[in-house]
Amino acid sequence: MITLTYRIETSGSIEALAAKIASDQSTGTFVALPGETEELKARVAARVLAIRHLAAAERPSIPTTGVGPFKRADVEVGFPLDAIGTDLAALMTIAIGGTYSIRGLSGIRVVDMKLPPEFEGDHPGPRFGIAGSRRLTGVEDRPIIGTIVKPALGLRPPETAAMVGELIDAGVDFIKDDEKLMSPAYSPLSERVKAIMPLILDHEQKTGKKVMYAFGISHADPDEMMRNHDMVLEAGGNCAVVNINSIGFGGMAFLRKRSGLVLHAHRNGWDILTRHPGLGMDFGVWQQFWRLLGVDQFQINGIASKYWEPDDSFVRSFEAVTAPIFSPADCALPVVCSGQWGGQAPETYQRTGRTVDLLYLCGGGIVSHPDGPGAGVRAVRQAWQAAVEDIPLNEFARDHVELARSIEKFADGSGA
Amino acid sequence: MITLTYRIETSGSIEALAAKIASDQSTGTFVALPGETEELKARVAARVLAIRHLAAAERPSIPTTGVGPFKRADVEVGFPLDAIGTDLAALMTIAIGGTYSIRGLSGIRVVDMKLPPEFEGDHPGPRFGIAGSRRLTGVEDRPIIGTIVKPALGLRPPETAAMVGELIDAGVDFIKDDEKLMSPAYSPLSERVKAIMPLILDHEQKTGKKVMYAFGISHADPDEMMRNHDMVLEAGGNCAVVNINSIGFGGMAFLRKRSGLVLHAHRNGWDILTRHPGLGMDFGVWQQFWRLLGVDQFQINGIASKYWEPDDSFVRSFEAVTAPIFSPADCALPVVCSGQWGGQAPETYQRTGRTVDLLYLCGGGIVSHPDGPGAGVRAVRQAWQAAVEDIPLNEFARDHVELARSIEKFADGSGA
Repeated sequence: MITLTYRIETSGSIEALAAKIASDQSTGTFVALPGETEELKARVAARVLAIRHLAAAERPSIPTTGVGPFKRADVEVGFPLDAIGTDLAALMTIAIGGTYSIRGLSGIRVVDMKLPPEFEGDHPGPRFGIAGSRRLTGVEDRPIIGTIVKPALGLRPPETAAMVGELIDAGVDFIKDDEKLMSPAYSPLSERVKAIMPLILDHEQKTGKKVMYAFGISHADPDEMMRNHDMVLEAGGNCAVVNINSIGFGGMAFLRKRSGLVLHAHRNGWDILTRHPGLGMDFGVWQQFWRLLGVDQFQINGIASKYWEPDDSFVRSFEAVTAPIFSPADCALPVVCSGQWGGQAPETYQRTGRTVDLLYLCGGGIVSHPDGPGAGVRAVRQAWQAAVEDIPLNEFARDHVELARSIEKFADGSGA
Repeated sequence: MITLTYRIETSGSIEALAAKIASDQSTGTFVALPGETEELKARVAARVLAIRHLAAAERPSIPTTGVGPFKRADVEVGFPLDAIGTDLAALMTIAIGGTYSIRGLSGIRVVDMKLPPEFEGDHPGPRFGIAGSRRLTGVEDRPIIGTIVKPALGLRPPETAAMVGELIDAGVDFIKDDEKLMSPAYSPLSERVKAIMPLILDHEQKTGKKVMYAFGISHADPDEMMRNHDMVLEAGGNCAVVNINSIGFGGMAFLRKRSGLVLHAHRNGWDILTRHPGLGMDFGVWQQFWRLLGVDQFQINGIASKYWEPDDSFVRSFEAVTAPIFSPADCALPVVCSGQWGGQAPETYQRTGRTVDLLYLCGGGIVSHPDGPGAGVRAVRQAWQAAVEDIPLNEFARDHVELARSIEKFADGSGA
C-alpha cells in the first residue's frame, strides 16, 4: 500500500473532495462492465483511509469567487501497490500530479508519502551518501566544510582557477560551482575542468588531502550531461552539482545508473512548489523521489538563510533527508548553506539532533573573512568546535582570533 | 538576448526587487577583481529592460506578515545569450528556477519568454507536429476525432481490447490510454500492446484507415521508457502518451532523439505551477520548453472542461501551442479535451481563430452516447460541421439524429 496525505481546502464538502481524489486517481468514473472488472476494481481502487479536520481558513489559498469558511483537512489516501507499481513517474503522475487539476478545491498540498518496501529494491538510492562523502573527503568527526567560488558567475576559467587555488590553500574540504554555472560561453565546463583539476590533484599529491570539487554538469540532454560527467571523472574529479528540478526524473535516473561521481543536488526551482503553505508539496515528500533516484548530497538552506525559507522549514528538511526511507544507506548528506558563516553553527547543531554529519557550505562566510579564506575556514571550524562543546561563540572567540574576527564582521546580521 | 517577463509582487520596492532578480540570476554579489572581469561582467550581466507598474493587490499571493498594499509590476529582464547558452536546463535554472527563492516577494509569476533564433538550431522540435498527425491519421479538412478507453483505469488488456475494437468500429481517428495508465500489474504495457495492435492493423488492412493509438509509455528511467517505445513501434504502433512533467526534460530529450512515435504530451502536474494567478508560470512560457524538446501533440483542456481551468485560459493555451516560436514547423497539434462532446465545437471554433487543426478528444462524449460510440463519433463530426458552417447546433440537429441525441443527453450541463 502506498499512502499519501493531502492537506485539502474547499468551501464544499471535505468528505466529497476526499472521495473524489481517491476515485479520480484510481478507478474513477467507472461504468459497469460484465465479467471480472468489479473484482479488479475492488482490488486496485484507492481508498480514503482517514480524514483529520483542521481549523478552517478565512481566506482561500487560491483566489476564488467561492464564499468561506474554507474547510481544511488532512486526508490520507491509500493506493494499492498494484494500481501504481514502483515506477516514480507513475507514482508522481497518479498520486500527486493528477490531484492538482481537480475542480472545487481552493488549496491542496501533499504533506506526507509512505512507500512500501517494494520501492527499495527497484531504485538505486545514493551511491555515496554520507559515508561515501566522508570517505572521499577524509573528514571524520566534524562537518565537511565547503565553499563556493565568488563571484559565483562571470569569471573566466583562469580567474576561477586562481580563486580555487586560494580556497584549496585555505584548507576547505569541498568547493562547488554555483548552480547557475554550467557551461556558458565565457566558462565552458571543459576549460574549467582543465584549469581546476590540476590544482586539486597537485594539492592531493603534496598533502594527501583531496578537495572535493563539484562541477556543474547539468544539461537537459542526458547524453550531453554524460559527456560532462565523463569529462570530470576522466580528469580525476569526484563530484558534480546537479540541478535536479531542471533535468527531471529522466535526467537523474539516466545519470545515476552511469555515474561515478558524488551527485550533489541543487533544488533550484523547487521553491515555487512549496513556498505557499496551502499549495504544492512538503519537502519531506518531494525529497523521497530524488533520494530513491540517487542524490548523495542535498542542498537544504540553513539557519538565517538569504532566501525566503524560514528556519523551521530548514530544520524539517534536515530531518527529512537524514531519516531513512528504508535504511540508513538511503539517507543523503544534508548540505547546509546560504548565508552561513559559522555563527549559525550552535543553533544548527542544537536543532538538528546534535549531529556533525553534514556539509556546511559557506560562500562569503569563508571567502570574505577579513583575514582571507584561510582564516575563514579556521573560523568556521572553531565555531563548530564551540557548538559541539556547548561553549558560547563569544566565549570561545576569546582565544580563537579567526572566530573573533568573523563575529566582528558577520554578526551584525548583515549575513555572509 | 533572452527576455523574460516576471509579474512580481512586493510590499517593498518594485525597482529594488527587479534589480535583485537581474543581479542574483547573473553576475550578482560581485566583488571587484583585477583584470578583465569588469568588462566580462558588463558583457554577461542581466539587465532590467522595462518595468510596467500594475494595480497593487490588497492581499499578498503568498501569506506574509508584511503590510500592504502589495505593489505589482511586470518586469522585463534581458539575459545576454552568452550568459546562459541554449541548453534548456540552464535556461530553466538561471532565468526561472532561481527567481522563485528570492526573499522579499509575496508573488512571482513568469508571464513571457522570448528566445533568440540560436535556440531553433539547437533543439529538435516536434518530429510530426500538425502535418505529421494529419498524414498518419489520414484526416484532412476537419478536426482529428479522438477518444479514450473507458473506464480509464482498472481494465485488464482483453477488456481494454474489446473496448478498443468497439471504438475502432465507431470510426474514431485516434484512441489513447488514460495518462494514469502506464504499466501497472493488472495491465502491463506489453500485454496491452499485444491485445490492441492486431485490431488496429487488422482494421487498417480491411479499410485502409489506421487508427492512431497512443500508448502510455512514460517511465522515470529513460532506458525503460525506450523499451516501452520500442515495443509499441515494433508492434506497428505510431503514437505514445508521455507525461512530460513526470519524466522531466531529461526523459523528453532522450526520447525525442530516439523516437519513431508521435509524442502526445499530457501535462499532468502542471496545474500547480499555474493555478494561483500570482505564482508560477504562464502556460505560454512553459510550453515553449516542451515544444523545443519535441512535443507533437499537446493536451490543453477545452471549453467547459471538467477541471479547474477557466475557458479563457484554455483559449490562451490554444493560441500558445499554435503560435510559431521560430517557424510553423515548431507548432504542436492542440489536443482539446476534458468533458468534450461536440457541444463545445462552435465556441471552440469561434474562439480559436476558426481553425480545424486540432485533435478533439471526447471520452464519455463518444463512449456514452445513448446510441453507442459509433453514433457518438458521428455526433461529434456533425457538431464540427455545424460549427464550421456557422449553423446553430440545435438547427443542425433537426436533420442529424446523432447530434440531436447527444444534445438530449449532454446539453444539460452535466458534462460528458
